[in-house]
Amino acid sequence: MFSDNLIHAIKFKNNPTVVGLDPRIESIPEFIKKAAFNKYGNNTKGISEAMYNFNKGIIDAVFDVVPAVKIQIAFYEVYGADGIEAFYKTAEYAKEKGLIVIADVKRGDIADVAEMYSKAYLQNPSIDAITINPYMGEDTMTPYIHDVIEYDKGLFILVKTSNVGSGTIQNLKTMNGTVYENVAYMVDKISKLAKGSLGYSSIGAVVGATYKEEAKILRKIMPSAIFLVPGYGAQGATAEDVINCFDENNLGAIVNSSRKVIFAYKSQYWKDVYSEYEYAQAARAEVLLMMGMINNAFLKRRYVAC
Amino acid sequence: MFSDNLIHAIKFKNNPTVVGLDPRIESIPEFIKKAAFNKYGNNTKGISEAMYNFNKGIIDAVFDVVPAVKIQIAFYEVYGADGIEAFYKTAEYAKEKGLIVIADVKRGDIADVAEMYSKAYLQNPSIDAITINPYMGEDTMTPYIHDVIEYDKGLFILVKTSNVGSGTIQNLKTMNGTVYENVAYMVDKISKLAKGSLGYSSIGAVVGATYKEEAKILRKIMPSAIFLVPGYGAQGATAEDVINCFDENNLGAIVNSSRKVIFAYKSQYWKDVYSEYEYAQAARAEVLLMMGMINNAFLKRRYVAC
Repeated sequence: MFSDNLIHAIKFKNNPTVVGLDPRIESIPEFIKKAAFNKYGNNTKGISEAMYNFNKGIIDAVFDVVPAVKIQIAFYEVYGADGIEAFYKTAEYAKEKGLIVIADVKRGDIADVAEMYSKAYLQNPSIDAITINPYMGEDTMTPYIHDVIEYDKGLFILVKTSNVGSGTIQNLKTMNGTVYENVAYMVDKISKLAKGSLGYSSIGAVVGATYKEEAKILRKIMPSAIFLVPGYGAQGATAEDVINCFDENNLGAIVNSSRKVIFAYKSQYWKDVYSEYEYAQAARAEVLLMMGMINNAFLKRRYVAC
Repeated sequence: MFSDNLIHAIKFKNNPTVVGLDPRIESIPEFIKKAAFNKYGNNTKGISEAMYNFNKGIIDAVFDVVPAVKIQIAFYEVYGADGIEAFYKTAEYAKEKGLIVIADVKRGDIADVAEMYSKAYLQNPSIDAITINPYMGEDTMTPYIHDVIEYDKGLFILVKTSNVGSGTIQNLKTMNGTVYENVAYMVDKISKLAKGSLGYSSIGAVVGATYKEEAKILRKIMPSAIFLVPGYGAQGATAEDVINCFDENNLGAIVNSSRKVIFAYKSQYWKDVYSEYEYAQAARAEVLLMMGMINNAFLKRRYVAC
C-alpha cells in the first residue's frame, strides 16, 4: 500500500525529505544546456532534453538518501508536448531508481473530467501519488479515491498552502472553524477509506511549512493523514517550522524542498565547494544537511517534551 | 481588449453559446477513428489525430454561428505529449477560424508556479482565455492578471461550479456570506483591473448553470464580470436555468455545452436526422437549437418583466 511503502522508505532512509524536481532552465548548469541545445537546438525539445538530463543527475545523486521526489508539472507543461514528455520520462527514471514519485499537478474538475486527470497520472505506472485541489467539492474527488484504492496509489489534497496569501479563502471563518479546517475534516473522513497497516492513510494533505500553528491544529484533525509539506527552504520555512507537521512518532509528514536542493550549487553556502559540474553532489549535500536539521529538530522537540 | 472582443462576437452572432471541445474517443465517429488509426495505429498518436480531425470538423461547422470554443485540456492531457499537441493544434485551428479560444485548464498554484502555467496558456497566441482555481489565494492570481493586461487575454475564476457536490467548500457559510460569495467579492475587486470600453471586464467568473438562485446573487456581486456558464445540456441545466447569469441587457454571460453539441449525432433527438458522417452538421443544428432556446428565454424574461 502507498502509505506503508512511503513510511517504510522514510524509516529506512531516516529521512522525510522529498526533492522537488522543478528544473528552471535558467538555473540549469551551462554544460547541460549546451549539450542538449547542440543536439536539438535552443527550443522546447532542447530545453526539455536539458531538464531531463539535469533531473537524471539529481536523481542519481539522491535516490539512496531520500524516500521520494516531487515533480511540479508546470515547469514541464510550459514547454508543451516536449515538456510533458520530459515530465513522464523523469517520473519513469525516478521510479526505476526505486523512488516514490509524487506528481504535483494540483488538478481539480468535475468527476467526468477528474477521471481523465486520474487516468493521466494515478493510472500511470511511474507515478505513485498526485496533489489535488478540493475547491470544486467532495464529489469531484471520487475518481481519484477510486484509483487510489484500485491501483494502490496516493493522494495529497490541498488543505493549507504555503504561500503568503493562502488565507484569502482558506482562512475564512465558518460556523465550524476556518475553511482549511473544514477541508481537513473532509480529508480525515476520506482518509479512512485508504488506511494502511501502519496506521497511515494513502490519502493525505498538503500543509504549508510556513504555517506552524495551523499545522499543530491540522495534525490533530487528521491523525492518520500523511502531510506533504511545501515551503521549506526557498520559501522561508526552517526545520523548527515543519516540526508540527509530524506526529509524536516523528512520522506522518514528508517535507519538500525544490530550488534550495536542486540548485544548491549556486547558493551562498555551497558555491565555493561545488562547481556547476558537481551540481548533483551539491544537491546531495544540501539534502543531507536538511535531513540533519530535521532530525535535530526531532531531538530538540523530545528534549523539550521531557 | 478580450472582453470587448467577446461581447462584440456575441452580439454579431446573436449567440452566447460556447462549444466545448471535449472529444471522448469512444464517442468519435468510427470513420474518423479508422482513418487516424490506419495512419498512426490505435495508440496515443492515433487517438490524438482522431480527436484533432474530429475537432476540425466541428469547428468548420460552427465557427460562423458561435463566438467561442472552450477546450477542456483533461481530455487531451490523458494522452500525454501527443494529446497536448492535439490540444494546441485545436486551439490554433479554432483561432485561425476567427473563434475566441478558451482553454479550460482550472490551474492554480503558488505565484512562481502560476507564472509557468500563465506562460503555457495565456502567453500562447492561439489561446484567448483560461479558467483558474482560486483556492490557493489572491496572491496566486497575480501572474495571470499580469498576463491578462500585458497580452490582452481573459480569465475566468471558479466561483460556483456546476457539479452536484460543489457545495462542500463553496457553500460553507462565513461571517460575510458563503465562500463562493467571498470569492465573488474578490473577483469583482480584481475585475476592475481589466475593464473594457463596453463596461465588461476581461476577468470573469465560472458560475454553474445548475445553480439558478445563486447566479442571481452572483450577477449582483460581480456586475462587470462575464460569466462562463458550464452545466447546460448534458449536466441538466436548461435555457431557463442559465438566464439569471445574464444581465438586464441579455449580455455578460457565455454558456458552454460540450457533449450535447459535439456528439449530437448520437442523441435521441438528432440520430435519425444525421448519420455519423454528418456529425458536424448535427453539432451545428444543436448549437442553433440552443441559440434559439436561449434567445427565447430572453424574450420570455422580457415579457415577465413587463
